Amino acid sequence: MTRAPRYTATIAALPATVPFTGPETLERASGRAFAARLGANESVFGPSPRVIEAIAAAGPEAWMYGDPEGHDLRTALARHHTLMAENIVLGAGIDGLLGTLVRLLVAPGDPIVTSAGAYPTFAYHVAANGGALRTVPYAGDAENPDALVAAARETGAKLVYIANPDNPMGSWHSAAVMQQMISALPEDCMLALDEAYIDLAPAGAAPLFDVADPRVLRLRTFSKAHGLAGLRIGYAIGAPATIRMFDRIRDHFGVGRLAQTAALAALQDVEWLHQVKAHVTASRAELSDIARKNGLTPLPSATNFVTMDCGGDGTFARAVLAGLLARGIFARMPSVPPLDRCIRVSCGGTEENALFAAALQDTLAELRNTDVT
Amino acid sequence: MTRAPRYTATIAALPATVPFTGPETLERASGRAFAARLGANESVFGPSPRVIEAIAAAGPEAWMYGDPEGHDLRTALARHHTLMAENIVLGAGIDGLLGTLVRLLVAPGDPIVTSAGAYPTFAYHVAANGGALRTVPYAGDAENPDALVAAARETGAKLVYIANPDNPMGSWHSAAVMQQMISALPEDCMLALDEAYIDLAPAGAAPLFDVADPRVLRLRTFSKAHGLAGLRIGYAIGAPATIRMFDRIRDHFGVGRLAQTAALAALQDVEWLHQVKAHVTASRAELSDIARKNGLTPLPSATNFVTMDCGGDGTFARAVLAGLLARGIFARMPSVPPLDRCIRVSCGGTEENALFAAALQDTLAELRNTDVT
Repeated sequence: MTRAPRYTATIAALPATVPFTGPETLERASGRAFAARLGANESVFGPSPRVIEAIAAAGPEAWMYGDPEGHDLRTALARHHTLMAENIVLGAGIDGLLGTLVRLLVAPGDPIVTSAGAYPTFAYHVAANGGALRTVPYAGDAENPDALVAAARETGAKLVYIANPDNPMGSWHSAAVMQQMISALPEDCMLALDEAYIDLAPAGAAPLFDVADPRVLRLRTFSKAHGLAGLRIGYAIGAPATIRMFDRIRDHFGVGRLAQTAALAALQDVEWLHQVKAHVTASRAELSDIARKNGLTPLPSATNFVTMDCGGDGTFARAVLAGLLARGIFARMPSVPPLDRCIRVSCGGTEENALFAAALQDTLAELRNTDVT
Repeated sequence: MTRAPRYTATIAALPATVPFTGPETLERASGRAFAARLGANESVFGPSPRVIEAIAAAGPEAWMYGDPEGHDLRTALARHHTLMAENIVLGAGIDGLLGTLVRLLVAPGDPIVTSAGAYPTFAYHVAANGGALRTVPYAGDAENPDALVAAARETGAKLVYIANPDNPMGSWHSAAVMQQMISALPEDCMLALDEAYIDLAPAGAAPLFDVADPRVLRLRTFSKAHGLAGLRIGYAIGAPATIRMFDRIRDHFGVGRLAQTAALAALQDVEWLHQVKAHVTASRAELSDIARKNGLTPLPSATNFVTMDCGGDGTFARAVLAGLLARGIFARMPSVPPLDRCIRVSCGGTEENALFAAALQDTLAELRNTDVT
C-alpha cells in the first residue's frame, strides 16, 4: 500500500484550475512589471486618505484577532442601509462569502444555475462542492434574469447567481427588473445577488432590501469603490435566519482586525466615495473615447471598468489582449462567445488610461499588419 | 409552500455553535473593556516595529489584491525552512487552512480523530463537513500520539489532528515522539500537525520535514510569536502533491496583500522574534510564580500561555475564571474534565501580569469566603 491521503470523491475529480491568474504571475512570466494594472477592476484611485491613516494607526494592534462578531462594522453598515445588524454577515470579500454560501447549500449533484461567462469564482465554488452547474446564455451583453429563473425552475436549482451590475460586461438591470426576478424565483431557491459594483452604478439599480425573504442574499464588498481589495472584506445582507446559517460554518476569526477597522473608516468617508465615483465616471468616458478613436465599441458600463467590443471574434480580441499585455497593460476579457469579442479594461487615472491608449493603438497597428482572423 | 432555502442535510443538522466567544462579545455584555487581554494567546508584545512600519507603508497599496500565488512570501518561507515554494501553501491563518484541509478530505460520515479537549476549531470544521469525529483522551496533560494513531487505525480515519505544542495545556512532545507518531500512521491517513506555537517551544520539538510524505501537513502561523493575529496569515508545509490539492478549492485571493507584506517583514526581523521569545520566557516564569504564590500549580509550557491547575474540579476552575473575567482579566480554560481543573492565561507583559496577579488573589479570597464545590 502506498502512502496516500483519501481525498473526497468530489475533490479527486476536480481539475487543477484557478478562477483567475494574478497579474503578479504574468509579471513573473514576462520578467517585467506592468505599467498599468487595469485587469482586476481594482480601484487605482486607492483607499481614502483617512483609511490609509486608519490602517497605519491600527498596525500596532495587529496582534489582536478581529472581533468575530464584527459588531462595530455591522452596526455601522446596518445604520448605513437602514437595516439591523442581524441582517448582515461579514466575510473575506465576496469570494469568501460565496464560498460559504455554496457550502451551505450545495451537496454533490445539487442543481445550481448561473450564466455562461459570468463570474468564474462562483462556478469554481460550486465545482468544489460537487454541484451540477446549469448555465444559461447572456441576452446580448446582459445577464438574462428570465432565463436564469426558468432554468432554476426547470432544474429544481437550490441556488441561482446573478451579478448586478454585471462583470465582465459592465451592463446592469433596473431595480424593477431585479425585483421581478426575485418575485419569479422558486419558493425554495436561493438567489445570490452579487452587487460588488453597485456603489458605481446609476441610481435605481438596487431593489429595496426585503429582509423578510430568506431566499435573497445581497453581496457587497469594500474591494471595488472603496479600494480595499488587499484587505479582504465584504458583507452579505439577508434575512436574519439566512444570516444565522453562516454562523454555523464560517471562519469566525477570518475577517481581520485591520480589515474591519479600514472598512469602518471607508464607510465613514462619504466624501471620498463621491470623489471616486466622479473619477470613475470621468475615466469611463475617457476609456470609451479611447476605444472609439481606435475603432472599438465601448459598451455602456455601470462599473469601474469598460468592456470594449473589438469588432471581431474571440481570436481577434485575444490577440488585442495579448498585444496589450505584451505592452505592459494588464487587462482581461470575457471567457465565452460571443462575449469574448470584447476586452475588459478597468478604469485608470489619466496616466494609466494614456498608457492604455498608446498600447492599444500600437497593438491594433501591429494586428493590421499581420494575419489575425 | 413557504419561501425557504434548502440547506444541505449536514448543515441543517448543525447546532448554532461558535468555537470561541470573542473578548469583544464579553466586553459588550459586561459593558466594560478588559484591563488585560490574556485569553486568546495573542502576543501582547505586538508585531515588530519593522512590521508596523511595513503595514503603514502598504496602506496606500490596499486597493490591490494580494498575489494569489503568494510568491514572495512562499519563496522566503521556503528559504527559511530549506524547502521549496512547492511545499508551501498560504492561508488565512491556521483556522482557514484547517477549514480547507477538512473540505479536501471529509465527506459526510467519514471517520476523523482528535483529542477530547483539543483545539475546538478543528472539530468545528469536521462537523461542518459531516465527519464522524472520534476523540481520545489526553494522557495526563498531554495529547496521546499512540492513542490517536490507534484510534485512526481502528476507525479507518482519513485525518487525525494533533497540536505540538498543545493548546490548551501548553505541553509538548519531542521531535522523536512526533516522528514515531508519523511512522506509525496508517498509510492512507493524513496527519494535521498544528505547530501554531512551535516558534515558542524549546529546541527539539519539531521533527524534520519529510516532504516526500503526502500524509503529513504541518501548520504554522504568524498569529502567535509574530503578533499578526489581526491580519490572518498562516501557512501549511507538505509534499507538493498535497499542497497542490489546496489549489483546487482554496480562495485564491483570500490572503490579503497587507497580510503577505506584513508576514514577509515579520519573517525578516529575526531579532524581534528573539526578543519576543525572551519576553515570553520571562512572562511564563512570572505567571508560574504568580500561580504558585496563590496556591495554583502552573503546568510546564512550550507556548505563550501558562495553564494553571486550580487544585479543584471544573466547577472550581470555572469560578476562578469567572472571578478573573469579572475583574477585567480576559482568560480562558480547557473544556473537558479533567483538563478543566485548569485555567489558561496568555503571557502578558509586566503590567498585564500584575493585573492578573491582583485579580487572581482577589478572586481566590472571595472564593474562600463562599461555598464553591
